[in-house]
Amino acid sequence: MTLHAVDIIRRKRDGEELSADEIRFVVEGAARETIPEEQLSAWLMAVFLRGLSLAELDTLTTAMRYSGETLQHSGLGRNTVDKHSTGGVGDKTSFLVAPIAAAAGLADPMISGRALGHTGGTLDKLESIPGFRTQLSLDEMRRVLEKCGASIVGQTKNLVPADRKLYALRDRTATVESPYLICASIMSKKLAAGLDALAIDVKAGSGAFLRDEAESAYLAALMVETGERAGTRTVAIQTDMSQPLGRFAGNWVEVQESVALLRGERDPLTEDCREISLVLAGWMIHLGGKAATAEEGKRIAEEKIADGSALHIFREMIAAQGGDLNAIDAGAAFHSPKIRRMLRADRSGYFTAADCTMIGWAVQRLGAGRERAGEPVEAHAGIEMHVKLGAKIEAGQPLVTMFMQDEARVAEPEHLLRAAITIGDAPVAPPPLVRQIISADNKNKFLNPPQRT
Amino acid sequence: MTLHAVDIIRRKRDGEELSADEIRFVVEGAARETIPEEQLSAWLMAVFLRGLSLAELDTLTTAMRYSGETLQHSGLGRNTVDKHSTGGVGDKTSFLVAPIAAAAGLADPMISGRALGHTGGTLDKLESIPGFRTQLSLDEMRRVLEKCGASIVGQTKNLVPADRKLYALRDRTATVESPYLICASIMSKKLAAGLDALAIDVKAGSGAFLRDEAESAYLAALMVETGERAGTRTVAIQTDMSQPLGRFAGNWVEVQESVALLRGERDPLTEDCREISLVLAGWMIHLGGKAATAEEGKRIAEEKIADGSALHIFREMIAAQGGDLNAIDAGAAFHSPKIRRMLRADRSGYFTAADCTMIGWAVQRLGAGRERAGEPVEAHAGIEMHVKLGAKIEAGQPLVTMFMQDEARVAEPEHLLRAAITIGDAPVAPPPLVRQIISADNKNKFLNPPQRT
Repeated sequence: MTLHAVDIIRRKRDGEELSADEIRFVVEGAARETIPEEQLSAWLMAVFLRGLSLAELDTLTTAMRYSGETLQHSGLGRNTVDKHSTGGVGDKTSFLVAPIAAAAGLADPMISGRALGHTGGTLDKLESIPGFRTQLSLDEMRRVLEKCGASIVGQTKNLVPADRKLYALRDRTATVESPYLICASIMSKKLAAGLDALAIDVKAGSGAFLRDEAESAYLAALMVETGERAGTRTVAIQTDMSQPLGRFAGNWVEVQESVALLRGERDPLTEDCREISLVLAGWMIHLGGKAATAEEGKRIAEEKIADGSALHIFREMIAAQGGDLNAIDAGAAFHSPKIRRMLRADRSGYFTAADCTMIGWAVQRLGAGRERAGEPVEAHAGIEMHVKLGAKIEAGQPLVTMFMQDEARVAEPEHLLRAAITIGDAPVAPPPLVRQIISADNKNKFLNPPQRT
Repeated sequence: MTLHAVDIIRRKRDGEELSADEIRFVVEGAARETIPEEQLSAWLMAVFLRGLSLAELDTLTTAMRYSGETLQHSGLGRNTVDKHSTGGVGDKTSFLVAPIAAAAGLADPMISGRALGHTGGTLDKLESIPGFRTQLSLDEMRRVLEKCGASIVGQTKNLVPADRKLYALRDRTATVESPYLICASIMSKKLAAGLDALAIDVKAGSGAFLRDEAESAYLAALMVETGERAGTRTVAIQTDMSQPLGRFAGNWVEVQESVALLRGERDPLTEDCREISLVLAGWMIHLGGKAATAEEGKRIAEEKIADGSALHIFREMIAAQGGDLNAIDAGAAFHSPKIRRMLRADRSGYFTAADCTMIGWAVQRLGAGRERAGEPVEAHAGIEMHVKLGAKIEAGQPLVTMFMQDEARVAEPEHLLRAAITIGDAPVAPPPLVRQIISADNKNKFLNPPQRT
């Protein structure tokens, strides 16, 4: 039977379940550009409002996964694992978990993205290291993986072309925030990378893209379901993003902070980042087959920091991808923003709430992120947080230091940061770092779509 | 505040009510092509699935109405009226009501369409008259109106360009069957024609585009509401389309049948067409201010046939638009299909049901309609029905005669017609011609959206 895009749109519009052939027809039409954008957009909106069954989602993700080239790791002699984050502020866990997993005998072929909206970009952060190349060919990535066990690169053009097309359309057609479309987009790319195991860091709280707890748990369960169906052991860990993770948010400052953590340095303001990284790495090591439990995996992860092997791998990976190790070894001494500006508390009290999305926008406006795809970012722009949620504050005490290249840019970020930080009268308990863990064992409990109005 | 299409799509997607500025922004973006098709399509699908409030619908219709040039009739010295049909098979009422209204002292500036899907096109039918021109400039139309009181033309390029754009997209994106989008499309064009009164023939039954009675009544009420809000007296009359209207369906054959009716000829097989035309014309005459009630209007309409004035006006209009009156006066003698093929009953019984949409497709496949926009149609293709629903049938009795130019085309229409006509054992009552009349007086009763699943 000949398939027609308009019939497939109509059926999804009317809430019917699409056949595997129909879904593959849409994905192929997106990848090969044989279905015009206006039809893909109407289909995306119908999917947004009508949802997908688990079978449809599985077919969609698989079809997208195979819409272009895929990674093969058969000769590597190691299980492959990876971590994905739904996007946060100051989230530098990739720089810890990839070398830790490699140190534990696994390989992490990490395909990362750039700063988007209020969230930072792993590639932008890595490119703050002089010489670091993120655009490797698949062959080059393979050689780095063979040598170091970890490689962090940008998406190649031929990987999941269907997602490239659909993602660009979703951005323009207000169809981004669908759990089904988010799941298919993330999981098709992760599965195309040929993973044995995957840990997904699903952010919750004021800095998360999906702020609704029930919706974020549903998305997490969809990703676990889709990953497990495809034979990739998958866990989703809902972690706190109600304030920036660690002490720094920006580009170079996050690399610098990661290196300090890999060196084993401890600091009350970075404990949250260390803890979440260890939990994620623990699951990667467990699901990757190197530990019987996630707890045992976490203990192994701590050892790989303590014995210096994770730092060694991170340095090797940077060198293999062209990065200058002198910068890495210089640490804070390499940090060279033109302007540093401190924001102080205008009253005493307690740090009771943070609008972490607004803090993310401040970081972006300081020059660490971009307003439009393709714009350059500034390597040394960013912020340093001097307080964590729950802290007692004295009037005049430092709250945040802003780093920027251009003083003219300071007004808006300063305004955003002031508005984002609430100092109240009564003490509050800091939020728990790990809110929920959704794995193959308990995913079914979360697989009921939350009611939308 | 600067408006962004993506925000407007998002708000409609989430079921929010759009502001007048937001709706006008979308309509202007469609008319001027400043909003790209993928965004218009996503918006159309969101409107399809979320619906519009009456205020939104009113704003949308008005904005579309004024998206291009509009007709002005101030110097005409007559009230302007028109009829619109949601589309049927054998529906030739336009050729009766326009001259009848003109004979009653009104003017009908009728802007008509072409064959679409299984339904015939008024312009295609008129063009079966040798020489008849449907593409008049607004000035030419004006002169025909001044001379005859009626003119039937095709849409000019500058009339309601927003609808031209949106309609083409709806066809490709499965967003046609929305009562809100149908209402805005129809009413924006009718209101741009500058009407004082409008009668809408909303078809019901197996030949109607909207077969669900509740949905079709809702659409009717929306059109009455929108018309009345814009100051155009509006009535919607739900009429039967469970079999072709009258005896003939096609192009020339429908003109020929209309002329016979305007001559006052009576024929049991055409009584349905005469009756519905008189009801519609009665309402046009009433709402146009020439009769105190629709019943009085209907009596006037009958007189305008009986005294020959409506036929006189129809002939004048044809002549004024370049048509050859010799064809009109020749009637059936002018009908010259190459092939006539009769379909006979293969059993005795009663004509219990017709799939009128299927009959419409048969007419189209015989050459009277087109498969793609821009294709030519055949003037003398069509069918003659020899029986009406409820009739007693003897085996071997003629059911339908097919007219065509090319015998090779006969197989599919014959198959469709056989499948469309059901001969059963028990007698059935023919359906009522007028099912419901929705006017300013009772529209509120119908303004609750039917539940969709």
